[in-house]
Amino acid sequence: MKEVLVPDKQQIIEASIRIANTIHRTPVLSSKLLNELFGGELFFKCENFQKAGAFKSRGAVNAILSLSKDELAQGVCTHSSGNHAQALARAAKINGVKAYIVMPNTAPKVKVDAVKQYGGEITFCKPTLKAREDSIAKVIEQTGATEIHPYNDLRIISGQATAAMELIEDIPDLDIIMAPVGGGGLLSGTALSTRYFSPNTKVIAAEPERANDDYRSFKENKFIPSENPDTIADGLLTSLGSITFPIISTYVHDIVTVKEESIIQAMKLIWERMKIIIEPSSAVPLAALIDKKVDVRNKRTGIILTGGNVDLNKLPWIS
Amino acid sequence: MKEVLVPDKQQIIEASIRIANTIHRTPVLSSKLLNELFGGELFFKCENFQKAGAFKSRGAVNAILSLSKDELAQGVCTHSSGNHAQALARAAKINGVKAYIVMPNTAPKVKVDAVKQYGGEITFCKPTLKAREDSIAKVIEQTGATEIHPYNDLRIISGQATAAMELIEDIPDLDIIMAPVGGGGLLSGTALSTRYFSPNTKVIAAEPERANDDYRSFKENKFIPSENPDTIADGLLTSLGSITFPIISTYVHDIVTVKEESIIQAMKLIWERMKIIIEPSSAVPLAALIDKKVDVRNKRTGIILTGGNVDLNKLPWIS
Repeated sequence: MKEVLVPDKQQIIEASIRIANTIHRTPVLSSKLLNELFGGELFFKCENFQKAGAFKSRGAVNAILSLSKDELAQGVCTHSSGNHAQALARAAKINGVKAYIVMPNTAPKVKVDAVKQYGGEITFCKPTLKAREDSIAKVIEQTGATEIHPYNDLRIISGQATAAMELIEDIPDLDIIMAPVGGGGLLSGTALSTRYFSPNTKVIAAEPERANDDYRSFKENKFIPSENPDTIADGLLTSLGSITFPIISTYVHDIVTVKEESIIQAMKLIWERMKIIIEPSSAVPLAALIDKKVDVRNKRTGIILTGGNVDLNKLPWIS
Repeated sequence: MKEVLVPDKQQIIEASIRIANTIHRTPVLSSKLLNELFGGELFFKCENFQKAGAFKSRGAVNAILSLSKDELAQGVCTHSSGNHAQALARAAKINGVKAYIVMPNTAPKVKVDAVKQYGGEITFCKPTLKAREDSIAKVIEQTGATEIHPYNDLRIISGQATAAMELIEDIPDLDIIMAPVGGGGLLSGTALSTRYFSPNTKVIAAEPERANDDYRSFKENKFIPSENPDTIADGLLTSLGSITFPIISTYVHDIVTVKEESIIQAMKLIWERMKIIIEPSSAVPLAALIDKKVDVRNKRTGIILTGGNVDLNKLPWIS
């Protein structure tokens, strides 16, 4: 059996100290109406209010602040068309470091603009795995930049772990902590923080039915890649990684899948009732409650709202 | 010269104590990006997170808790198709009191449903002033209910005043406090709290150009009624009242008007950058900054975000 590479308790505590001045300690909100609706106490950790609009800033800042001076001088690079790209560009900018971002040429303008706004240098590539890997390799060859993978990286995982750590500090005695799962960076961090700081709390992840590779990998206990995922939760399209999969297999209690229409319903419910903007991926855990996949009645459940980056011109309930 | 009827400092303090257990002490949020955009420090008092989704809960709760047992036994009534109707219905419900709400038969279903949800008893009338007054008179005759006017009422004004009072407690040394103005309940309360608790702070109100009766009343120093107002800021359609007009004339430093497209732009800016949901009326003060009607550069400006009740199926920037 292979040994599982895992950030230890001290590494997560150090990450939280390292990033404290550069990220928000986001609030935990609750809604009486949602509590009544689901019959339990729900505590929402609002990473939609995080810098650059998503929890990804935690890992990105932790990764950059973990590099040596020599590494920093040559910049960082990544492939991402989503929140990690923005978060890394921002974290690089405020540390005076270059960020090279490889994006598919199919990326929406709103996401390209967001990365540019934070000063990221974008290289476009064809939307294939091969083109992406070639582009990243070329950027590294030309610049000497350090690659910061969106999730399959221990520094990223330690950074993302600080969200659940803060949630546990603010709301003790949670019965359940829920997070969505895509590549598994947030979920790995959440599972580890929960094990270290609130070992009696169960960690349950939620994933769209139409991108259920993580669910299947977890249930069949073997890595199954994401194939043609088709979900509105565009933060959850990726497969688990070689580091995140074993952590999740070992420390997560369950993964459940949710219907696409429940994701939209959950998203609208949070907008309407809590008056906060969350992106579809953030709504996936609440969708699991709507789909009755997780029983939260008379329990205290923490839910990580992962981000709030939405194209306001295209809302899923307005056709 | 007529004497101006004004809640005194003590009455506002008493209102804040009276309502403390029944309303939220809402947070004050700020955004680095918005500060950079406008060149000053902006502090947003988030009444969009208030109970029933708007500051109106403050006045409604204060009014109901100011009634005698005998009055309470006969219920309360009002005419409103907006946030006051919901706020009064909620405040009545949690105090075990009947709320009779007269609404025009043209009121949108989403607003009717919200009042019903809080247990309000709705009487529909034609959308004319005469029909409204007749309906209210009939309800009072039949039930003995006490009318709680949406804004032209000292108990309402004292309640609304607690929003600015909290803002001043949380953020001292503000140069300016801004609020939108319609009937003037919030603005009267804001002006009084500012005078009592932060007398060096200027109070500047903002109103849609296309509903500029308050601006004209203020500038010409005579009451001018609202005529055919036509603005997306549907909380600001009403005229000033006999109590609010003299308070505003005396204690508000300026009223400015804003373009309709700037209201929409300001609303979207807050949604996008702060990840919170505000209704169009809430966006009117920020629209005044976009229209360069108020100079906030290098100043500390508090802005009251009045509410977050929006029909999410109809957003002004999506046609």
